[in-house]
Amino acid sequence: MNIIEKFDKRAKEINSLVCVGLDADIAKIPERFLEMEHPQFEFNKWIIEETHEFTASYKLNSAFYEARGDQGMRELKMTMDYLIEKHQDIVTIDDAKRADIGNTNNGYVQSVFDWMGFDSITLHPYLGQEALQPFLDRADKASIILCRTSNPGSPEFQDIQSDGKTMWQIVAESVATKWNKKNNCMLVVGATYPEEMKKVRSLVGDMTFLVPGIGAQGGSVEEVMEAGKNSAGRGLIINSARGIIFSDNPKEEAQKLRDEIRKYQ
Amino acid sequence: MNIIEKFDKRAKEINSLVCVGLDADIAKIPERFLEMEHPQFEFNKWIIEETHEFTASYKLNSAFYEARGDQGMRELKMTMDYLIEKHQDIVTIDDAKRADIGNTNNGYVQSVFDWMGFDSITLHPYLGQEALQPFLDRADKASIILCRTSNPGSPEFQDIQSDGKTMWQIVAESVATKWNKKNNCMLVVGATYPEEMKKVRSLVGDMTFLVPGIGAQGGSVEEVMEAGKNSAGRGLIINSARGIIFSDNPKEEAQKLRDEIRKYQ
Repeated sequence: MNIIEKFDKRAKEINSLVCVGLDADIAKIPERFLEMEHPQFEFNKWIIEETHEFTASYKLNSAFYEARGDQGMRELKMTMDYLIEKHQDIVTIDDAKRADIGNTNNGYVQSVFDWMGFDSITLHPYLGQEALQPFLDRADKASIILCRTSNPGSPEFQDIQSDGKTMWQIVAESVATKWNKKNNCMLVVGATYPEEMKKVRSLVGDMTFLVPGIGAQGGSVEEVMEAGKNSAGRGLIINSARGIIFSDNPKEEAQKLRDEIRKYQ
Repeated sequence: MNIIEKFDKRAKEINSLVCVGLDADIAKIPERFLEMEHPQFEFNKWIIEETHEFTASYKLNSAFYEARGDQGMRELKMTMDYLIEKHQDIVTIDDAKRADIGNTNNGYVQSVFDWMGFDSITLHPYLGQEALQPFLDRADKASIILCRTSNPGSPEFQDIQSDGKTMWQIVAESVATKWNKKNNCMLVVGATYPEEMKKVRSLVGDMTFLVPGIGAQGGSVEEVMEAGKNSAGRGLIINSARGIIFSDNPKEEAQKLRDEIRKYQ
């Protein structure tokens, strides 16, 4: 079973498309964790235990861990060790937004897929397929390519048009028709651009999207579901981070998001 | 003095545009280092002592260190501690090819600029200026934006044309005219595309380029110098990694590259 099938199986089993973003920003995690030896890991462990029953995927943004140097890297790995031991059926995403040229990517492949054991990684498309081959070659893992990102400034380059097609359209089509030979590719499509998401869905069939931008960034679950769900009513990994993990009741917020998504499936 | 001035001062003082790529791939470093507690750091220390007199910049590609998890991250930092203590006048580049959205980039800023102490970092342009602002805001550091990369597959997206301009042209012009408000931006322009480099030079004036792709990748020093040097005969950080660090005589190879560059200044 490949990683995209693993996600779909989990999503079906628990009837949830929720992805919890474990963005364990050390400046924001509750004080009681700060006295512990491994504050980011302990915080994550707590969030995982509160939310896992509603969760089809956990996404960890590497920046929040790298901010603390090798200590943060260790706690990122500890979180992965914990997830692999306790919740093997939940898909893990390293939101690391990497991409180097050719063989240099082997370093990231080793780090993210082999050392830490992530199921998948987010990648920049700018260097092209040839550069990303070391990720794409891994049929046992998934590559999630940035297509239309959720930030307000994403149009600057992503909306550049060539022969009537925007950059994000060209990326979507290239990934769907050329990069995805091992059925191990997904696309990042931000919740803040539902019109673009609809178009991407029409271009790439049932491919799975990672969808950031719900909640704090302003994306709406209803719009995302209408624009983005695939023919099975799934095909979306809907991420929420701050809105769940830094809320007063992470469990309740995860359940709420699951239930809201269900309404539009 | 900002980082680009720091590079130019060093380049003038030692009359060299050489950047040594400390790509300390653990599978390739000489056996005698492998028995040591910190093999990548010890290897780097040796290379630095062999090459520093010819070297205007050291570039460390993060992938080779991350491949070894937190241990590698520690050795990357140890290398930086060593460079900051012993060779403060040499510009350091974290070839990490990062870029996340908005505030998330603060994690990378903290990690790369503050924790490790790098002078500069390489960045993907795909998310746009707004996303990269946390890097661009750092007037005391430099942001090196991927423009035309050296890999054979770089044309896939970088050559896409819009209104007669390629993507790499649009990136070059945007960085030069909009992103570079604090005079802390550079561009990555691969040695393997001298025609494109010539065009980029004509678009951006005297801006400094980081130039990978000399040597093993096939770029020629003569072509790079003719296409890329600025009005002062400098403005290029010419990187060589494997050709120097894994040669029989790193010192000799660094000196040879310096001398070859001088011929065309």
